[in-house]
Amino acid sequence: MTYAKVKYEGLKELCNIVFEKFGFTQEDSETITDVLLLSDLFGIESHGIQRLVKYYSEIKNGLIKVDSTPKIVKEIPVSATLDAQAGMGQLAGKKAMNMAIEKAKTSGMGMVVVRNSNHYGIAGYYARMAQKEGLLGISMTNSPAVIVPTFGKDAMLGTNPIAISMPAKPYPFLMDIATSVVTRGKIEVYNKRHEPLPLGLALDKNGEDTKDPYDILYNLPKRLGGGLVPLGGSGELTGGHKGYGLALAVEMFTAILSGGITGNYVTLNGSSGSGTCHYFCAIDYGIFGDKKSIEDSFSKYLEELRNSEKAKGAVRIYTHGEKEVESYKDKMENGVPLNEVTLKEIEDICKYFNIKANDYITKFTIDEI
Amino acid sequence: MTYAKVKYEGLKELCNIVFEKFGFTQEDSETITDVLLLSDLFGIESHGIQRLVKYYSEIKNGLIKVDSTPKIVKEIPVSATLDAQAGMGQLAGKKAMNMAIEKAKTSGMGMVVVRNSNHYGIAGYYARMAQKEGLLGISMTNSPAVIVPTFGKDAMLGTNPIAISMPAKPYPFLMDIATSVVTRGKIEVYNKRHEPLPLGLALDKNGEDTKDPYDILYNLPKRLGGGLVPLGGSGELTGGHKGYGLALAVEMFTAILSGGITGNYVTLNGSSGSGTCHYFCAIDYGIFGDKKSIEDSFSKYLEELRNSEKAKGAVRIYTHGEKEVESYKDKMENGVPLNEVTLKEIEDICKYFNIKANDYITKFTIDEI
Repeated sequence: MTYAKVKYEGLKELCNIVFEKFGFTQEDSETITDVLLLSDLFGIESHGIQRLVKYYSEIKNGLIKVDSTPKIVKEIPVSATLDAQAGMGQLAGKKAMNMAIEKAKTSGMGMVVVRNSNHYGIAGYYARMAQKEGLLGISMTNSPAVIVPTFGKDAMLGTNPIAISMPAKPYPFLMDIATSVVTRGKIEVYNKRHEPLPLGLALDKNGEDTKDPYDILYNLPKRLGGGLVPLGGSGELTGGHKGYGLALAVEMFTAILSGGITGNYVTLNGSSGSGTCHYFCAIDYGIFGDKKSIEDSFSKYLEELRNSEKAKGAVRIYTHGEKEVESYKDKMENGVPLNEVTLKEIEDICKYFNIKANDYITKFTIDEI
Repeated sequence: MTYAKVKYEGLKELCNIVFEKFGFTQEDSETITDVLLLSDLFGIESHGIQRLVKYYSEIKNGLIKVDSTPKIVKEIPVSATLDAQAGMGQLAGKKAMNMAIEKAKTSGMGMVVVRNSNHYGIAGYYARMAQKEGLLGISMTNSPAVIVPTFGKDAMLGTNPIAISMPAKPYPFLMDIATSVVTRGKIEVYNKRHEPLPLGLALDKNGEDTKDPYDILYNLPKRLGGGLVPLGGSGELTGGHKGYGLALAVEMFTAILSGGITGNYVTLNGSSGSGTCHYFCAIDYGIFGDKKSIEDSFSKYLEELRNSEKAKGAVRIYTHGEKEVESYKDKMENGVPLNEVTLKEIEDICKYFNIKANDYITKFTIDEI
C-alpha cells in the first residue's frame, strides 16, 4: 500500500468544499472537516478523511440527513439531552460538548447526552475541546455492535470508545480507547496485508478465537455471529469481563441515558438514521481546589510516569496524548499521509462534483508502508 | 485451605463489637462492618472481614486515626472536596457518597473527592449506595502503587478500581473492576497454593513477564521493581496501554482532583496516614429523560445480553452485578465462608479484647476449597 503525503492546508480547503457540495453550510463543513482531519493529524487513519466517501453514501441512502439540526429535548443547568435528528455526528457532537463546556463554566460541570445521531469521528476530539478550554473533558459513543460479550458468540456492543482529556504540561492528557482489544480498523489492516490475526483479538461465528480477518469482516455487517473480543481478552482469566463491563457502561451512558438505541440496534434502524448515541461531560476542576496546583501536580505525576524505570529492552514510557502531539507536529510539517485507495476516492468524488483536486492537494512524497 | 461457614447476623454483631473495641463509635463501627461484610457476601474475600486485623495494626502504628472525622475543604452545590484527616476510608467514603447523593437529588448530579484517606473496602459499595437511592453511582479509589505502566518496570499506579452501578431489574448493574489484569489478591491465591502464575498477569523486577507469585509479593512492598500488568496485558498489542490509561485516569479523578497523593506515594507518606484518595459521583438520570423508561430500556438491554447466543461450550452470559446478587443470597442463607487463617485471627483478636467469639459465630460447616 502506498501513501502520498499532502499539505494539511490544501487538504482542509478541499475537504470543506466537498462537504459544501454534499449540502452542508460553510460553518458545518468546517466543523466536520476539523474533526476528520484531527484524526489524520493524530495518526488515526480509520477515523479521518478516508470516511469522506462513506459519509456521502450514507447521505445518499438517507441514513445521514444533511439539513437536520440537533434538537434540545430536555435541559437543566448541569445537563441536557439532544436528539440529533439523524444529522452528522460531528455537528451534534460539537454542539453538545460546547453546551457541556458552558454548563461547566457556569455551574462547575455539565453532562450532555445525544440520541439518534451518526458516526461522530474520534471521541478524543470532544474530550480535547474541553481540555482546550481549561476543563476536564469526557466523551463516549456507542456504534454498531462489534464486541461480543464474555461467553457469548454474537456482537452485542459497539467498539464504544472512552475519551478523557485534561490540561497538563508539556503534553495534555488525552486518552481515547476503544473498549475492545483492537478496533475493527486493525482487523482491516491484517486483512489488507493478508496476514493472520494473533489469537485473542476476534471471534469466529461460533464464538471461538480465530486468526482469519476476512471471516470477521464478512460476518460482522451480516450479523452472522462473532466479532471483536472485549479489552482483557476472551473469557475471564485475563479480565475480558472487565472490557465487556466498560463497553456495557458506555452503552448505558450513551444509549440508555439519552433514550436512544443500543449498539445491537444501531444501523439496523435504517429509516431514521443510524441511531448512534453519544455522551459528553465537562468539569471545571477549579471546583475541587486551586486550578494551578491541580494542573502542576498532574504535570508532575505524568512526568514521573514517563521518567520511571523502563522494562528490559524498552526505551520509552508514554503518557496518553504524547504520541498524538508528536504526530500532529510531524504531519503539520511533513504532510498528511493518504493511502492510495483514499486518494483515488477523493479524486473520484472531486471529478463527480467538478472540483479540480490538484488545485488543493499536492502529493509531495510517496511512501510504501 | 479450609473454610468454615458462619451466620451473617452473628458475624456482623461480633465485627461491630471489635470495631468499638478499636475505639470507633457504635455508628462508625456499624458503617465499617457493613462495608466489609458486603464484600464477603459478594464473594470478594480479599476486601472483607479478613482486613479486620490488618486495620488494627494500621490503627496501632498511627496510619489510621480512629478519632478523625472527614473535613469539608471546599463545597459548591454540585461538588465537594473532603480531607479524611487519615481516618478510616469507609467513614470518609460513606460520608462523601452521601453528600454526592444529596447533591444529585438537589442539583441533578454530585461529585465528591476525598484526599488523605485510607483503604475504603470495595469500590462497588459506594456505587451501590447511589443505585439503592435510584441514582447512577460511580466510585474510584487509588491505592499503593502495584500497576506497572506499559513499557515500565516499576509499579507507579494503584490497582485503581472503577465501580459503576445503576438500577435495573431483576439485577441492578454493578461493575467493580480493578484496572489491572488481576488484583494482588489473585496473586496471593497462586502463592498460597504454590501454583505458577499464567504469563501475562505480573512482571518481575526487570519488568519482564513472570510465573513466580512469591517473587511479586516479595518485591512489591519493598518497591524493588515489578508488579501487576494493566488490563489488556503487557505492551500494546493486546491493549495494555488502555488499562494503563484507565489506571492513570483513576489517579487523576482521585489524587489529582482532590489535591492528594498519587499511588506511587501512598503508604510511603506514613506519618500522615496512608494518603489514599477517592472519587464519588451520583447522577439522577431523571435529568436526561423519563426515569421509568430509562430503567425499563436498561433492564431490557441487560436481558438481551444475557439471552444472546452463547459461545461454543459456554452455558451462560452474565451481566455485571448478577453474580453478586446470587452470592449475596447464597451467603445469607448458607453462611459466610471464613478461611482458617482469618478465623484464627478473629479468635485471637477476640481473646485479646476479652470477647467470647463463640457467643457470636457458630461454624456450621467446614469446606475444603
